[in-house]
Formats: sequence, structure tokens, C-alpha cells
Amino acid sequence: MPSTNLIKESYTDVLIIGAGPSGYMCALWLARCGIPTRIIDKRSNKTFTGQADGLQTRSLEIFKSFSEEHFDWQTMDSAWRVANQMEEMVFWSPDENGTITRKARAPDTLPGISRYTESVINQGNVEKWFDESISHFSDGKIKVERPYLPVSIKIDENAKDDAHSYAVEVLVKKVNEDLANPEQYGQIANGLYRAFDGDQDKFYNSSIEESEKKDFELIHAKYVLGADGAHSWVRKQLEIGMEGEHTDFVWGVLDISPITDFPDIRSKNAIHSKESGSMMIIPREFDLVRFYIQLKEVERDAGTTDVPREFMGNCDDPNAKKKGRIDRSKITPESIMKQAQAIIAPYKLEMTNLSWYTAYQIGQRVSPKFERNLRVFISGDACHTHSPKAGQGMNVSMQDTYNLGFKLALVCKGLAKQDILQTYEDERIKVARDLIAFDHKLSRLFSNKPMIPNAKVIEGETDIADMDEFHSVWVQGLKFASGTISDYDDSILVNKKGLKHTEKEEKEEKEEGEEKGVFSPLASKIPIGRRLFSDWSIGQIDHKPWHFADRLSSDGRFRVILFAGDVKQYPENMKRLHEFNGPLLSSESFANKYTPKNAFANSVIEVLVVHAAKRNDVEFYEFPEFARREDFKNRVDYWSILAGVGKLHQSGHQFDLYETYGISKKEGAILVVRPDSHVAQVSEFSETGLKQVDDYFGRFMIDQRDVSVPEKDKNALDFDRFIKPRLAV
Amino acid sequence: MPSTNLIKESYTDVLIIGAGPSGYMCALWLARCGIPTRIIDKRSNKTFTGQADGLQTRSLEIFKSFSEEHFDWQTMDSAWRVANQMEEMVFWSPDENGTITRKARAPDTLPGISRYTESVINQGNVEKWFDESISHFSDGKIKVERPYLPVSIKIDENAKDDAHSYAVEVLVKKVNEDLANPEQYGQIANGLYRAFDGDQDKFYNSSIEESEKKDFELIHAKYVLGADGAHSWVRKQLEIGMEGEHTDFVWGVLDISPITDFPDIRSKNAIHSKESGSMMIIPREFDLVRFYIQLKEVERDAGTTDVPREFMGNCDDPNAKKKGRIDRSKITPESIMKQAQAIIAPYKLEMTNLSWYTAYQIGQRVSPKFERNLRVFISGDACHTHSPKAGQGMNVSMQDTYNLGFKLALVCKGLAKQDILQTYEDERIKVARDLIAFDHKLSRLFSNKPMIPNAKVIEGETDIADMDEFHSVWVQGLKFASGTISDYDDSILVNKKGLKHTEKEEKEEKEEGEEKGVFSPLASKIPIGRRLFSDWSIGQIDHKPWHFADRLSSDGRFRVILFAGDVKQYPENMKRLHEFNGPLLSSESFANKYTPKNAFANSVIEVLVVHAAKRNDVEFYEFPEFARREDFKNRVDYWSILAGVGKLHQSGHQFDLYETYGISKKEGAILVVRPDSHVAQVSEFSETGLKQVDDYFGRFMIDQRDVSVPEKDKNALDFDRFIKPRLAV
Repeated sequence: MPSTNLIKESYTDVLIIGAGPSGYMCALWLARCGIPTRIIDKRSNKTFTGQADGLQTRSLEIFKSFSEEHFDWQTMDSAWRVANQMEEMVFWSPDENGTITRKARAPDTLPGISRYTESVINQGNVEKWFDESISHFSDGKIKVERPYLPVSIKIDENAKDDAHSYAVEVLVKKVNEDLANPEQYGQIANGLYRAFDGDQDKFYNSSIEESEKKDFELIHAKYVLGADGAHSWVRKQLEIGMEGEHTDFVWGVLDISPITDFPDIRSKNAIHSKESGSMMIIPREFDLVRFYIQLKEVERDAGTTDVPREFMGNCDDPNAKKKGRIDRSKITPESIMKQAQAIIAPYKLEMTNLSWYTAYQIGQRVSPKFERNLRVFISGDACHTHSPKAGQGMNVSMQDTYNLGFKLALVCKGLAKQDILQTYEDERIKVARDLIAFDHKLSRLFSNKPMIPNAKVIEGETDIADMDEFHSVWVQGLKFASGTISDYDDSILVNKKGLKHTEKEEKEEKEEGEEKGVFSPLASKIPIGRRLFSDWSIGQIDHKPWHFADRLSSDGRFRVILFAGDVKQYPENMKRLHEFNGPLLSSESFANKYTPKNAFANSVIEVLVVHAAKRNDVEFYEFPEFARREDFKNRVDYWSILAGVGKLHQSGHQFDLYETYGISKKEGAILVVRPDSHVAQVSEFSETGLKQVDDYFGRFMIDQRDVSVPEKDKNALDFDRFIKPRLAV
Repeated sequence: MPSTNLIKESYTDVLIIGAGPSGYMCALWLARCGIPTRIIDKRSNKTFTGQADGLQTRSLEIFKSFSEEHFDWQTMDSAWRVANQMEEMVFWSPDENGTITRKARAPDTLPGISRYTESVINQGNVEKWFDESISHFSDGKIKVERPYLPVSIKIDENAKDDAHSYAVEVLVKKVNEDLANPEQYGQIANGLYRAFDGDQDKFYNSSIEESEKKDFELIHAKYVLGADGAHSWVRKQLEIGMEGEHTDFVWGVLDISPITDFPDIRSKNAIHSKESGSMMIIPREFDLVRFYIQLKEVERDAGTTDVPREFMGNCDDPNAKKKGRIDRSKITPESIMKQAQAIIAPYKLEMTNLSWYTAYQIGQRVSPKFERNLRVFISGDACHTHSPKAGQGMNVSMQDTYNLGFKLALVCKGLAKQDILQTYEDERIKVARDLIAFDHKLSRLFSNKPMIPNAKVIEGETDIADMDEFHSVWVQGLKFASGTISDYDDSILVNKKGLKHTEKEEKEEKEEGEEKGVFSPLASKIPIGRRLFSDWSIGQIDHKPWHFADRLSSDGRFRVILFAGDVKQYPENMKRLHEFNGPLLSSESFANKYTPKNAFANSVIEVLVVHAAKRNDVEFYEFPEFARREDFKNRVDYWSILAGVGKLHQSGHQFDLYETYGISKKEGAILVVRPDSHVAQVSEFSETGLKQVDDYFGRFMIDQRDVSVPEKDKNALDFDRFIKPRLAV
């Protein structure tokens, strides 16, 4: 590190390096929770066209959770309204004569898995919504700073025990805007470009010229996130490698308005041609269509000079075997188009409105470590790379930091112990590995030649894909690809203790190749460790329909949900609720102990009651006081008591959340749900169950009974922010 | 008029006077259609709090129609997402002991009437969304200019025949900002205030001082709208009076966060107390609640000096009988609150966060004329005033100009004859009169004393309301109040010729007191003249679910919808569609004749095909060319062929638009739908039927075969705007 008095110095809780979807999602969480945060990016421009485009259902659920239901901030949810909602997947492969023909249609998203369907829109729009939302939640304080290049990083190894020390120093340089602009292919943004890829040495060699001092800044951060892409500078500084392999399959990508007579041009298509390779079609916003096109004839060279690294299959391992690199200058939109025409024949295909193109070589690689010292973390492409065709990249990358962000916020606010940060790597490395395995299987089936019906298989030919197998792997993969079944193991934040799979389940798991959820008999349809599935409920006082997930918005709070059962049919259940009143209002309870003494009730851990009685048989004020807390003006929280069983007035739809969750209307249950809506624990609806909730929070939360929220330090502990959506000021 | 060389002069197609919801809706239409428009308002501030707050289902449908489905402009639809969606109406009245008790609950919106439910939000938000949308659609060209006061108006009586002459001169004065600010009650906006009410004479007396010249502007407009409220200056200039009556009932209004133990505080409530009067409760956004409170004790005086006119019951008729005016200074939030407490007792009620209050005297009055010379129009409160409790004011006012706006746009674009403007008064005066009658009945039942169960009715006491009658009038009124059954009579724009009610229907109509729709046997569930009810359909090429109304967005286009029936089961139907191809592509056809020669196909009249075959049994390219027109780059319109029968992948919902509309899958039908989505005509799915469509448009459309869209004059004829939602540029 240079002498600190030579350069600008500053302090922040979290520094995020890289403003792609992964970095943005982390910034969004931190902005939502009021944590001082900086986010820098080496590019001078935002993404406008191209890049990732698929939004899986879990990502749309997450976006919705940052859109405040019934209040004036729904920008993240714009994705769902604006993106092209994908309805159908169509499979085309050669018939007996070798001509491509429609083999099957399937819903693009597995019905029933989510409220949403996979949707597609360019990454530029997604980043725009992130920008606006981060600015909204941080009152304009957090915005992406660009172009900033990190040039050195140092972790104070001794600081480990003090979660609030500024243990990481990052030296950054503001670079010339012109240097950081992507090249253009004619008028077209060229997806082959990567700014400053590995060029940091040009900008900093451990000494700074006097004339350059003004461009440098030394940022002291408590925590750092490297969300800086497949060629992550942060990962290299941490000396973390990438494990896996790459293939010889090369694919080109085009975003165009096609002129074609192909009849399914507005559906998603997987096309295997007999001899010309495979193609994927993804209809986008307006009449834009993305084509992924397998390139059969690509010129390669053996040169080692200025060929960009992305043509080595996202492979930074110098020992990876090389067949020779692709000659970049030979890949043009026209050459990709030519291949596309060969694949889709006899249908015609021409392009207008080319808006983006790129090319890539398929590889599947994952980092063995996602963090260092619980101080510096990596996420997204920085720790896993794979082929783009399952539409996973942007999604898994955002879901990485949707996992990390709330944990950083809890630690930075001083609410939780640093230990919880360990769960980030544990939880996400498993998802990354599953993704790599899935993509490995799928991308080979996609890139291999199709088996022709009734044709003889030539002995020894191994790169033949059975189209039925391809179809079934694809459909099986939909559940995984949706992102809704990411399953987090037993840990400090997830309690699966004592719950195991039956032998039958384990057998099925092996046979079906899909991980089964772990369930408590008290809530037999809620897989613990996975995100809580949503279904309808209604407000007790107002009959307002809530998709239950919307009651669990991403505002940083844990939820304790008391499923009190049918409090009318079983009066003892209502009695028990009232018996909870004393404990839950006492300062010893989790409901109060972890909330700073001058913060609003429910602002750290929100307690909800969901009953199963007929809503009109019971009155709001029959419920105990803990379920309808008052604020300093005696304004009541009307929205914490819900009926889980009933009928919606308008649609006539009957719902039963107890049935959906497998909870008995007599026995009830208590759920603990994490701020990311993953189920943390299921316990009995009893004093014992309540005690288990206390125990759960006791493992990692920090007693706040002597802590006050600094009234003016809104950035540090903005508890108001938590309560704002509930009560007007 | 002053000598024109003394002041600033300007020209516009339409001048709108008054930027309340009615004026805004007109401006939105004109902005959407690219018509040069100015909109001025005498207040210097926008509305922030208070005023109207109810949005009925038809208004929400209209808002949605200005939100471009699947594209990045959904601001008008924010209302639905942000407003408090009202679920329940609760009726409270005295029990045998005279204590208020819950008598009944009902869904607040009649189930099945619309996709929406009544929702409430303050008028300020609605105006903000209008502002943003008008700016969006006009590329920032149209915005409310304030504070501007109109001081004289003159219509050129000789200009009648030339629809495009600037036949109206309006002299306006920019006034001092300070003079145009509402008074405050302490920190609270005071709803009793009206700016410059009838004070125009202070600002202009047919001569202008030299020093003031700069403040005046003479605006020449083709058409003028007076949407300037209950005390409309425009209406007075046109010498149009108001007919009707006013009552002695005085009501106060409070917007507060209540502190109460009343159990239904988050539902809509109508409360009749035994002796203290009536109250209406409307829960709003956040924990805000609006109270309408009948004021029993109001001090009155007989003075004639400076008492504001609004306390004469919105009555400008100097001959109206007066009981004496209310002493304004005696009405305060505290005095209104005191009455509220008496009504709601034994429940407690206190207020925090008072954000608005006002008071009004009930009257029902309507203008006999809504226009002069088809040049100057009045709308909204300027032509009908009534009590606010049925939540009609903002809605009917917006619906007035939703009716007028597209007609002005068609005339200003030169697409339609001026004659169509006559339908504005014909169509809307009927709605206004129905509204006045409804409100007359309801508001008396609301303000009268409740009948006590089992109590003796005192002979001769006439102001007693039967609570059962009140309840049933309310529920009966929901359909009318929703705004979805406004029924426009036979006219140049609506063809009901030859269709009559049966005797049975006429009898029922009289008995039920509700106007019955007029139906063609070809579409036995579509009332001609009313807005087309929406149900699901899916895109032929992409399986994309469309609520059919969203395919009919408010972009200024007429729609001709060919319900071709089951084109697979009845191949002759597909054959007929193909036979239509020649006629529909010919320049003689309505489909081309009324579209300027260099404008996109479908940009004036859009032709849609909705078939009833199984979608997967038929291919997109089997349909004739007219249904999949190409643009100048040969890009195909993929969205004009839909399947009206099918199943949604995600919800599993089965839909049948043919069943919903009562159309035979063998016979089919042809619908003409106006730009406001009111059904104009139903005819056979045959050459004869097609000829009837030609005849319909021949009545009022102007041949455009020699007309070119001026390429640079985007304001005058922005046809691109029409097509933009369909195809990216």
C-alpha cells in the first residue's frame, strides 16, 4: 500500500467491485437496509443491449420482494410487466429425411412452480431498474461509480474478531472515460469486448506518480464483494482458481429482428439440424429475437499474442489444454447468420435491426472458495461460468448476492454475529456445483449431433444425442433452472436437526437425480431450507388478498409466523395465542431482545399470525396485543393478522394456506423465515415451539436491549426504513 | 378582444382549461394521439392531498388501456398497484337499543364485473401519473401551464364548416404565483379553498394596461374544453346554466390516521347512528382513512357578503332557495371530529396525521348543454355536481373526456368528420342524468335518520331511511357506480339499427330500474354501445395470454375483430377468411382507404382475427396475409391473430371468449370497436358483414388515399406512435 497521506482515503461498510447483476443485487439489499455502501465498475457505460436476457421465476419473485406491495415503489417488478413472458418451448429435430420438424411443445416454465414464468429482457433494462431502486432506497446516496479500477487489495488478518473494523483496504483508480468504452462493430455493440481485462498492471505498479495522485483513492471497507465477472480481478487477488473444464464447442449469439417464415419464431425453440449444428431461439421484447447458433466451422490459430482470453473458454488456468484459439476476426454477424440459415433451412431467415452479437466457447468451471477471512467475497461469474443457454447466468449470479446481501446487512447493523457470513459459501457453492453439473449434461446434448429416427447408429460414434433424452433432460431441468428449489443445508441459519429423509425418499432421490426436500411433520409440504412457496391469504381486518410472499418482502426482517390453526373451532388455540402474549411482549423474548430499544416493534423480527378460522367468525380485536403492536403515536399495525383459509371476492378463488403448507388446522405450527424467505425452522405451536424460536435466534443474534438507534445516523441503523412500508409517518 | 398586436398570440389544435382529472384525461388522449394541445390551470400548485379519492373499476380499466402491455410504460396502471384496493363494504346501523351494530358485509365491487375492484388513493397521485404519462406520450411537449387564468373567449360563428379553422380565441393571463396558492389551515391544506372563483373581472375588463401586456396571451384554438370545475368559468361564458336542486344536508370530510377500536376501520363502512347522523369510512393508502361525516349542528347566517359560494350547495342559480349559509369559520377539523365521535360511539375515535379536510352541502345538478357549436365543450364538475359518497366525481369526469378525447383526436388528425363530436353531448349527458338520479336517491337514504328495528314509525315523519332499502339501493347501485355499463345510444358512431328490446326485457327493465343492454343475436352477450367486457385469449404464434382488452389499448385506433369461429372444424370458415384477403388488401376497403398512403397498415383501423380452433391444430402462416401485415422492412405483425379458446399454461385456467361473448363457433361474427373500446357494431362473418363494416366507417371517416403523413410534422399526424407498441423501430 502506498503511503496513505498521498492519496484520498475514505471509509465504507461494504465495497462492491463490479456493477453487473450480481453486484447490483448486493447493493440493492444494502441500500434497502440502510448500510453505507459503495459500488464501483471499470466500464464507463452501463449495459444497453445484449448480454444476459433470461429471468427465471425465482429472480422475478426476488424482484417482486423489493417492490413494495400496495405502495409506490414497484420498479423491480417492472421486469415482470415489461419483459417478454415466455410461454412455450418447442423442440425441432430432423425427421427421417433429415429435414427439421417440430417434435414437441412444452410449457416453458413448469406449471405450478411459481406465480411467474420465465421472462426475457435485455440486461440493460434490468440494470436500469436496479439503478433506480438502489437510488430510491438509499435516498440517492448509493450509485455506481465508474470507471473505477481496483488496483490493490489488502486484508488485515488480525481484525478477524471485530466485525466492525475496517479490515480491508482497496486502492482504486479513476480511469479515463475514453479508455473504458466498449468497442463498436460498425454501429453495433460488440459483445466480445471486455474492458481492462487483466490490464490492472498498466495502471498501478505499487508506486504512484505525483501527477496521478488525484486519480487514486484508498477505500477502507469492513467487507468487500468481488462481483467482477468471469475474469475476476478480486478472485485472482485472493489466489482462488477455477476448477472444471472447457469444450471445443463454439457458439455465436445474435440479437436481431428476424425476417422468417419459421412458424414458431415467437416461442423458445431448440433446433437440432442433421449436419449443420444446433440453434436456440429466444423471442425477446418487441419483435427482437435472440439466436444462439452453434458454429461448426471456426478458424483457429495457435498464436499466443493478443487474442482475447474469452476464446479460451473462460479458462484462466494456463495449464488447461488448448486445441488452438478461435480467430476472432473471422467471426462476424454475417458469418454467424450464415450458419443460422443452414440450421433453420428449409425455412428462410434474414436479419434486420441487429442490436448485439457475441461468440463463446462452452466451459463449465467453478471456484473451490467463495470468500477469504469472511471479509472478502466473490459472486456470480467470478465463481462459476457455464454456457448461457439454460438462461442461468444472470439469475444464479443475482441469487448469490441475494443470499449474501442480507447477511452483510445484519452484521453491519450489529444485529447478528459475523459467523452467519460463513453460510454464504456453504449455501451457494452447492448451487454452483449443481448448476455446473446440469449445464455439463445439457450443453453436450445440445451441441452433439441429433440421432436420426430409424437411422443406424454408427459404431464408435459418441457425439450423438438422443432427442428423447435431450427433451427429457430439458424438462427435468426446468425445476432446477427456475431457481425455486435451491436448498440450503443445516447451519447456524437453517435448522434441519433431527429431520431426515426416509429410505424410500433417498431411493427416489437417486433414481430421479433430483434432491428431495427435508420436511417437518408439522408442515409436511414446506421443504426446510428452500424458499417459502407462496399462495393466497387475506387480511383479517380488511379482507385484502395477499399473495403470502408479498407479506414477506425483502426489507431485512426475519419473520416468525404463528400458524395458530382454527382459533374458532379449537378455542384452546386462541387461548394459547393469548398465553403467548406475556412472553412475546417481555423483553426476554426474541421479539424484543434483538430490537434496539428505541426502534419500532417488529422492525428486526416480525411476528405474524395466520389463522385458519373463517375470517368473519372472528374479530381483529379478539387477537392478543402482540399481534397488533402500536407505534409511538398509538397507530396500530393492522397487517400482521391474516386468515389463511377463505375465498377471494373477485375471482371466487378458494384458498387454503394450511393445505398448501401441510399444516394441521388443529395442531398449527411456528415457522421461522429468513429475510431471503428461505424457511429456517419449523416448530410446534406451543410454548416449547416458541422456546425453539428463542433458541434459533440465540445462536447468532446480538442482544440489543442496551442499544439505541442513533437518531441522526440514518445510514448506520435506519430502522425507520424497515417500518415505513407498514405505517405512514 | 383586444388588438392582437398588443399581446402574445399562439395557435393550438386544442386548448384545455382546467387540470383536474377531467382535463388531464382529455390531454392524455390528445398526447397519446399526437395532437398539438395546451392545458392551463389557474392554481399554481398541483393537488397533493385530499380531493377525490375513489377510482371505480371502469376508470382502472381506462388507466390500464393507456399502459402499454409488455412495454415499458405502465404509469397509468400504477393506480391499480398503489391504491388501496377496496375489498369490503360494511353496513352499520342502530340495533333495538339504538347502539350501532354491524348489519351486513358485502364485496365492495360486484364480483365478475371487471378485472379490477374499486380502489382509493389521493387525487394528487392520480394527477402525478397523468403528468408523467402526458409528458411521456408527447415527448415532453405537453405539460400543464400554471397559473393561467382565462379572461375572455370568442367563437367564430362562421367557421363552423371548416373543422380545421382556429375558430376559438381565448385570452389568458398569467397571474402571480402567490395569488394562486391555496390557503392553509395551520399546516393542513384546506379543501374549502377555491382559487379565483368568479374573480376573473379583477384581472381583465376588456382593456389591458401597457405594463401588463406581457402577462397576456391570445390563444387561437380549433377546439376548447372547459374542465374547470363546479364553478366553471367556461360554462358561464357559454351561458349554460345548471338544473337541479340542493339540500340542507351538510357533510364534513377528514383525511386522518385514526386511533380507534372500531373493528372494521380498514373496510369501507356506511354507519347510520340513531340520533347523531351518518358517516362513511373509506380506508386509504398506508393507514390513512377518509371520513365523510354528516354535520347535524352547523351555524348558518343570512349574510350575503363574502361567504364563498360553495356553501350554497354548488348552486350558481341566483334564484335557488336559500335556507341561509353555513358559517364557515365554525367548521374546523375539531368540530367535524366531535360529530364523528358521536356517530361512532361506543367505539372510540381520535385523530393523528390530519392531512386534509373540507365540508360540502349536498346538491344534484346537471347542465342542459355540454357544448357550443361543436367547438367549445364542458366536462366533469363543470356540467354535473353531486355528493361525493358514491365515489363518482373523479370517475365520471374522467370518463366524460375519455369519450371526448379520441373524437377530438380523430377530427384534428383529419381522419373523421366533425359530426362525430355531436355524440359527446348525446352520450355523456345521459350518463350525467343517470348519475344525478342515482345520487339523489342514495344521498337522501344516507342522510336521513335510520329506522330503528321494531320501533314505531311516527306518523308524518318523512326523513326516515329504511336500512334494508339503503342496503339494497347501495348494492343495486354498484353496477352503475362501477362505470362499466355506460350505454351509448344509436348514433353515427354506434349502430343499434334494427335491434330492439323484447317486451319481456322492457318489462324487466322497468321492474328492476336498470337499463338493459341491446344485443345482436350474433353476439348474444355483448351489449352494443357498452364497453367490451374482457376475458382471456392467447396469441396464435406465441401462446401469450392476453386479457383481450389489453389487445385494444387506447392508442386512437378503431378495431375490426373478425371472430372467424373454429377454422379447423369448419374449413369453410378458414376459406372465408382467405376470401376476405382480396377485399381487405384492396385500396377500396375500410382497412386501407382511411389510412394515409405512407402510414403503416393497421395504424388507423386495426383488423384482428380471433378464431375458436385449438391453437395447436392450426399454424400462424395458414392465416391470410391481411392478418399478418408486414412493414417497410418486411417485419411481420405477429400479434393480430389470436385463439379465443384454450387453456393458460400456468394457472390451468380454461377460457372461451366465444362463450363469454355469445358468439357461435360455426357462424362467427364481426365486431367493430371504437377507440374507447365501446362496441360500435356487430355484423355477420360474411361478405355482407364486411360490407356493413365498410358502411359504418363510410358514415364519418375521410378518405385518405391522397393524403400523406407529413414526415417531419410529428405533432400533426404521428402515425408512428400508433404502431410503436407493436413493432420496434
